Amino acid sequence: MSEATATKGYRIALDCMGGDLGPSEAVAAAALAFKEGVIGPADTLILVGHEDNLRLLAREHRILNKPERVFYRHAPTAVAMDDAAMAVLKSKRDSSMVKALEMLKAGEADVVVSTGNTKALVAAGTIKVRPMEGAERPALAAIMPRREGHFIMLDVGANPEAKPEHLLHNAVLGSIYAQCSLGIANPRVGLLTVGTEEGKGGARINRTHQLLKAMGDRINYVGPVEGYDVFGDACDVVVTDGFTGNVLVKTIEGLVYMVRDLVGSKVKRNPVYIASGVAMFPLLRDLKGKLKPERYGGAPLLGLTGLVMKAHGSSNRQGICSAIRLGLEALGHDAGRRMQAALAEANQVVAATPEEA
Amino acid sequence: MSEATATKGYRIALDCMGGDLGPSEAVAAAALAFKEGVIGPADTLILVGHEDNLRLLAREHRILNKPERVFYRHAPTAVAMDDAAMAVLKSKRDSSMVKALEMLKAGEADVVVSTGNTKALVAAGTIKVRPMEGAERPALAAIMPRREGHFIMLDVGANPEAKPEHLLHNAVLGSIYAQCSLGIANPRVGLLTVGTEEGKGGARINRTHQLLKAMGDRINYVGPVEGYDVFGDACDVVVTDGFTGNVLVKTIEGLVYMVRDLVGSKVKRNPVYIASGVAMFPLLRDLKGKLKPERYGGAPLLGLTGLVMKAHGSSNRQGICSAIRLGLEALGHDAGRRMQAALAEANQVVAATPEEA
Repeated sequence: MSEATATKGYRIALDCMGGDLGPSEAVAAAALAFKEGVIGPADTLILVGHEDNLRLLAREHRILNKPERVFYRHAPTAVAMDDAAMAVLKSKRDSSMVKALEMLKAGEADVVVSTGNTKALVAAGTIKVRPMEGAERPALAAIMPRREGHFIMLDVGANPEAKPEHLLHNAVLGSIYAQCSLGIANPRVGLLTVGTEEGKGGARINRTHQLLKAMGDRINYVGPVEGYDVFGDACDVVVTDGFTGNVLVKTIEGLVYMVRDLVGSKVKRNPVYIASGVAMFPLLRDLKGKLKPERYGGAPLLGLTGLVMKAHGSSNRQGICSAIRLGLEALGHDAGRRMQAALAEANQVVAATPEEA
Repeated sequence: MSEATATKGYRIALDCMGGDLGPSEAVAAAALAFKEGVIGPADTLILVGHEDNLRLLAREHRILNKPERVFYRHAPTAVAMDDAAMAVLKSKRDSSMVKALEMLKAGEADVVVSTGNTKALVAAGTIKVRPMEGAERPALAAIMPRREGHFIMLDVGANPEAKPEHLLHNAVLGSIYAQCSLGIANPRVGLLTVGTEEGKGGARINRTHQLLKAMGDRINYVGPVEGYDVFGDACDVVVTDGFTGNVLVKTIEGLVYMVRDLVGSKVKRNPVYIASGVAMFPLLRDLKGKLKPERYGGAPLLGLTGLVMKAHGSSNRQGICSAIRLGLEALGHDAGRRMQAALAEANQVVAATPEEA
């Protein structure tokens, strides 16, 4: 972070209650973030959840010796993984997730980090924190591994019925997020579809392609990309709707687990493999690390007036700490203001670009 | 195949010109299919392509000693992988692909097997062979590996803008195809979406879910499934639109190649891995076999009045032979007549099921 940022400092509201590993892991993540300097000297942390419990955990993890940097916001309930998304704002108004979002809305926090129920976070985040001017729905942006380095895919589940304008918004938001999180100066943006000829993929893709071309040099659009290209080096930002993106990341996760299990069971069943398998273990561990979805920490809900970071429900302390880091990086790059400006530009292009017959 | 089938025999039109490995591999596949008894004693084969060339290749591969079982249909041109789909019926009327489809339409062949350009095959197949009564568009059905055995996914690219009725058609067609190709008596059908609660995934998914439930015991519908479930044991037939399905299978293929390259490069770079890597080689080969998309041979274009099998463009002789086998199995199970009856039933259900408000 720059000096200016460090002087100002950011306030991180950490929803400690919704993850699979519970508040203990969230507090451990906070301790790790302090220890590794992810949370800078001027930043402050608000632990949101059952306060007595959190104070005990903070003592265990030795972050009580930072009274001027760690605060608490009591929330007696938690959103469960199977709570219906739309019901959360009514039935779980005093949950840690909703309390954290309210702090963001009220300007008492600069970023919310939550491991909770994705659909509830999208719904409650959209209603509480509100979309940026000119945006209708947020997009969930995942960082994914590829042969060399990483790429951004969005939307991976916030807006399953995205219209061409929404896909254009995803492109500009994802482009800025790739600058902040991957450090790519001029990210290449690809539109995911079923064929790279123009006219393939239906009316929605055609209109989006037209809009992206009309953006000119305001975005580094490299054209339509296919599934084959995703793990290659065709582009740095893969733009898709929340239906396709969600199915895709979950299927990839399912496949990765299957490959690991296949390798694991074969190694176990065959004595020759056991001997060589021991030597191969670091390789398998590397592969697992490379492909482990949790490793890429947080996925921001882009396009809201405040920054909400979703960490995988099964995140361990490293995963949650990584979500905190990604959130602070986005804040440090002034991502919110830049995204707001880019959305306004994109909407001007939409208005100025008549649909082709 | 049953005795009755063997007595009658089927006529296979093999488009020999469109694959990446050329006509030589197609003729080698034909020889393999005869040798392994895939093509039964009463079946006949028509090699479609440049006749002189094919006769030479047939001599090389020693299938000229079957004059009463191997025939030729001359076609002077071939559809290229980058030919625009819709132009093929005009500019490539004398191509092996179009000639083979014309034989199917004219009742001179019972099945077409082609390694050619998928989009051209879908477009030309739909126009030449025509959809079954009550269907509007065909669906491409892929056989995919999972932890144990295989499952069917459709549509993987024929109809990117599928409506709820089309998705219902995919469900009934895929269910019958799973019986024929996987030998599952009562295949479990899942609808791919972004969440398993009712009401998730948008209006199109909701209406499809409603129609599938209204089918009652005419189909073994197990409900919505997510990406996580695809490689598990939740269902045998994964129903989706041609956009999502196409992106999904291509992304999976890209990921599988990435994993293999990662494993390969790690093994090569580290001397410890080289020693153990040699012992691990059979494991990697098994894994490669398990995940190799070409292995699952053909994907039929379901819902046309004749049977068109698409084999992967890069198919080797085993892949093409497998496509021939899958085609003959479908014919042997009287799939066409049963699919036509199932579509009529499905359309009755659509008409009798008013949309929910």
